[in-house]
Amino acid sequence: MQKITLLIHCKDQKGIIAAVTNYIACIDGNIVYLDQHVDEDEDVFFMRIECEFKNPKNDLKALEADFEQQLAAPFEMTWQLFTQEQKPKMAIFVSKYDHCLYDVLGRYRANELPLEISVIISNHRDLEPVAQQFGIPFYHVPFTKEIKVKGEEQQLEILHKYEIDFIVLARYMQIITPNLIARYKNRIINIHHSFLPAFPGAKPYHSAFKRGVKIIGATSHYVTEELDEGPIIEQDIARVSHSHSIEDFITKGRDVERMVLARAIKLHAEHKTMVYNNKTVVFL
Amino acid sequence: MQKITLLIHCKDQKGIIAAVTNYIACIDGNIVYLDQHVDEDEDVFFMRIECEFKNPKNDLKALEADFEQQLAAPFEMTWQLFTQEQKPKMAIFVSKYDHCLYDVLGRYRANELPLEISVIISNHRDLEPVAQQFGIPFYHVPFTKEIKVKGEEQQLEILHKYEIDFIVLARYMQIITPNLIARYKNRIINIHHSFLPAFPGAKPYHSAFKRGVKIIGATSHYVTEELDEGPIIEQDIARVSHSHSIEDFITKGRDVERMVLARAIKLHAEHKTMVYNNKTVVFL
Amino acid sequence: MQKITLLIHCKDQKGIIAAVTNYIACIDGNIVYLDQHVDEDEDVFFMRIECEFKNPKNDLKALEADFEQQLAAPFEMTWQLFTQEQKPKMAIFVSKYDHCLYDVLGRYRANELPLEISVIISNHRDLEPVAQQFGIPFYHVPFTKEIKVKGEEQQLEILHKYEIDFIVLARYMQIITPNLIARYKNRIINIHHSFLPAFPGAKPYHSAFKRGVKIIGATSHYVTEELDEGPIIEQDIARVSHSHSIEDFITKGRDVERMVLARAIKLHAEHKTMVYNNKTVVFL
Amino acid sequence: MQKITLLIHCKDQKGIIAAVTNYIACIDGNIVYLDQHVDEDEDVFFMRIECEFKNPKNDLKALEADFEQQLAAPFEMTWQLFTQEQKPKMAIFVSKYDHCLYDVLGRYRANELPLEISVIISNHRDLEPVAQQFGIPFYHVPFTKEIKVKGEEQQLEILHKYEIDFIVLARYMQIITPNLIARYKNRIINIHHSFLPAFPGAKPYHSAFKRGVKIIGATSHYVTEELDEGPIIEQDIARVSHSHSIEDFITKGRDVERMVLARAIKLHAEHKTMVYNNKTVVFL
Repeated sequence: MQKITLLIHCKDQKGIIAAVTNYIACIDGNIVYLDQHVDEDEDVFFMRIECEFKNPKNDLKALEADFEQQLAAPFEMTWQLFTQEQKPKMAIFVSKYDHCLYDVLGRYRANELPLEISVIISNHRDLEPVAQQFGIPFYHVPFTKEIKVKGEEQQLEILHKYEIDFIVLARYMQIITPNLIARYKNRIINIHHSFLPAFPGAKPYHSAFKRGVKIIGATSHYVTEELDEGPIIEQDIARVSHSHSIEDFITKGRDVERMVLARAIKLHAEHKTMVYNNKTVVFL
Repeated sequence: MQKITLLIHCKDQKGIIAAVTNYIACIDGNIVYLDQHVDEDEDVFFMRIECEFKNPKNDLKALEADFEQQLAAPFEMTWQLFTQEQKPKMAIFVSKYDHCLYDVLGRYRANELPLEISVIISNHRDLEPVAQQFGIPFYHVPFTKEIKVKGEEQQLEILHKYEIDFIVLARYMQIITPNLIARYKNRIINIHHSFLPAFPGAKPYHSAFKRGVKIIGATSHYVTEELDEGPIIEQDIARVSHSHSIEDFITKGRDVERMVLARAIKLHAEHKTMVYNNKTVVFL
Repeated sequence: MQKITLLIHCKDQKGIIAAVTNYIACIDGNIVYLDQHVDEDEDVFFMRIECEFKNPKNDLKALEADFEQQLAAPFEMTWQLFTQEQKPKMAIFVSKYDHCLYDVLGRYRANELPLEISVIISNHRDLEPVAQQFGIPFYHVPFTKEIKVKGEEQQLEILHKYEIDFIVLARYMQIITPNLIARYKNRIINIHHSFLPAFPGAKPYHSAFKRGVKIIGATSHYVTEELDEGPIIEQDIARVSHSHSIEDFITKGRDVERMVLARAIKLHAEHKTMVYNNKTVVFL
Repeated sequence: MQKITLLIHCKDQKGIIAAVTNYIACIDGNIVYLDQHVDEDEDVFFMRIECEFKNPKNDLKALEADFEQQLAAPFEMTWQLFTQEQKPKMAIFVSKYDHCLYDVLGRYRANELPLEISVIISNHRDLEPVAQQFGIPFYHVPFTKEIKVKGEEQQLEILHKYEIDFIVLARYMQIITPNLIARYKNRIINIHHSFLPAFPGAKPYHSAFKRGVKIIGATSHYVTEELDEGPIIEQDIARVSHSHSIEDFITKGRDVERMVLARAIKLHAEHKTMVYNNKTVVFL
């Protein structure tokens, strides 16, 4: 049994669902999941389909070419096709905070993530032992404003060497260069430690404490050139009270951060997110 | 612009989605929402479609007959078709607790519920003033084990008179007769004040307090002959602690009850629930 | 059995708890609840005590004078004493949105709020029938920038006439004058339809939709001269997704608004909130 | 600065709080946290105090003897005193599931847990590499009904050798013997994968799926001889829908399990839990 996932978006048009589902029926596929969304303001159609084939399509190239000709071209679709066997390759960028890293690696070893963690890149050496402990290649790539050209060059080289599909910033405390963002458009996931758009930028827990909020949160989003302004993938919150200190906010926040980041990684790796107009469509 | 909602379930078969979406395209409908589900254990297919017609179908009977012949018969579908204008008629059964009643009536007057509240039936006279205050017909139908045949008869008469589509038990403290359940199969919604299957039956807050739980809940479900065993529509919870008394449990629980009941009523009235195998499919 | 609640705050000093609890023991009171908080940054001490007296203190004035002399003066306390019988008198300000109003009035009639709703004031006549339906005096006080002096005057007169203790803005869409804020310092509760500090000001659901957030929220806070910047009493959130329109955000948000407002009203009426440094201490 | 935590419970009596807080003031302690609870049904008083001493009490034995004589004896208190430096020693029991183990060890290495993980005991060898990876001693102690006397003997020997203070069952799939339970009364924490009392015993996710619930949960509790009937420390839930398979329930449930277990471990290690009458008092 072969399982294929199809992501499609295009201008909304009458008959798209019929056309695509017909096509899948004609090539002997069985649809096990279909979700669609119409953005009525933008008049855009989104669809995610999972289908199964009893007789595996061994020549995927031919299938893709046929789909392009029969459907994608006439409807002017932007589309992607994934097979379940292709596990995306992920790189992790970290600095010194280790809680998200431990959480992601623990989940990886517990077989909860449908992906391959190929490499860990850090601007510090502090977390190298964690990488070693979990048997993941680790690269120390210093990065500051002064050496960002060289830093970016090294990063790109490593990402290329490991054929990385997407990048996770697990509390990485340096900016990502526009060049890297462009190369990995909608494929760099950051975790920010506030419920955006509240408290963007540095030290959000301190700001939240000062404001006297009763809930704190975390936000995972795709990285764009505007800091903390990219398309939001997932958010969650925790309740706090007057009895909590800034340190308590940070401790409680860590739990939210790791949960929200883990969910975003999983959604991305399972091809359940689509980006349009600086927003995400997340098919659960 | 005419809006039609279609609910379908049948044995899972290849090509159903294509057939139905084709049909809608052929009759000039535009699908604005489609959600489907396959119960793989039971091999059953469920679908909910909302579609819009620029040229309203004035002869719905003809449309229904055509759909039956073209699609429902060949695929052996169980199906229902609703137009947006048809607001379902709802009866409320209450006893003496008034918090759910106030909540439902307040939402109704605030135009949050796509339905018509036609009548309130109670085994006590206590809440008659509330019905009057909101201008809803009220009937006092005494009901005890001893007079349940007569009670049921009166209930059915009133339900018939007001052409009731579905019934909401807003903390109604008497049993519903098998006859009434059969007449309104999957159309009687109860709110039970625990997260079922924990604490079925009477006094769940007392049992929860005794057990020392840290969360309490409420459950809305369709009524079946087995007490508190019907298909669950919606559940939610609230956190409690050692500092809460049984009275606090009850107070906090009331908030959960009214929220969970209101959501279930709305889901049912919007034709977003389907029942199969004592479970619900809820298309959000 | 007489029940008294005591709220205290002062500079943190060694021995305060002992002194106060000793005092209560000496006057034959039994402490049934004690909660305290030290703001270590500001070095301020807060305490809330509920105590019971088998022999009621009929001369409260004498008790207060004694407490002032024995404890409040030496420790330089700011303090308040409440008996359970004194129900605070509340005024509701509304404009045209009715969902919070229905919710508060429904809870009031269902005996969930330990207070008296004395009057409803509105800058429109739309909700007068709701006030009548629930038997609460209603005053139409037009209010715009141009007539704000006259509007304020009328508001103050009505508040004075009904001896109002605190004011609830149940989605009141006009500004509150500095004069009124000063008279009811930390006694005017607003409900804002976002999780502040995200989306202050007008049309927060529209902004939240545009930003593509995955959670929306509501915030109840005491009104200060800075719009949406006052001390936060309570917040809560609801999950949203790409499939929700702005209208869906608004509908889901209404549920959060009414819940958060109801909780804030209850906390205030039970004397469980204290304000310091633009933050609240909320003793649950 | 020395920090001491005091846990007290006894029959409710007038003047206890005053007596204890007086005592602390007299020995030059500053109370930074005080929480108390009166179980009115059982007439029992609970208190947790954190206090700081600028001049450390080096002779703790003397302090304890003095407290016993001055306060504990006259009020017939059950009480415990902890200093912040004493980190409790924890043993982990596991079988084959690794997600809770990875989570606890990750948090431990990320310095989130105020305790020492001294040893891991398992009835299988599968997770030995995880223990090695994190540098924690691992013991394989086979355990079945047939060899439970020998198994228990080995377990007790290891627990004794490492001077274990409390035990965490991180999805340990064997029963704990009555003898072990008695030795570690209210010091063995289990994580059960349902919101108890719903779905006790084996395969709760399967039962939850069959019942068609809309929320699943997890419960951490102290182990007693009655399976899944011990005092509940913490619970939490996750929402599920018709679209989730049993496998999805299990995956989502793992997140709840690890969060609920981690919270319970932290609460216990920080001496924030007290047990009475098969319920917990949890001072947050």
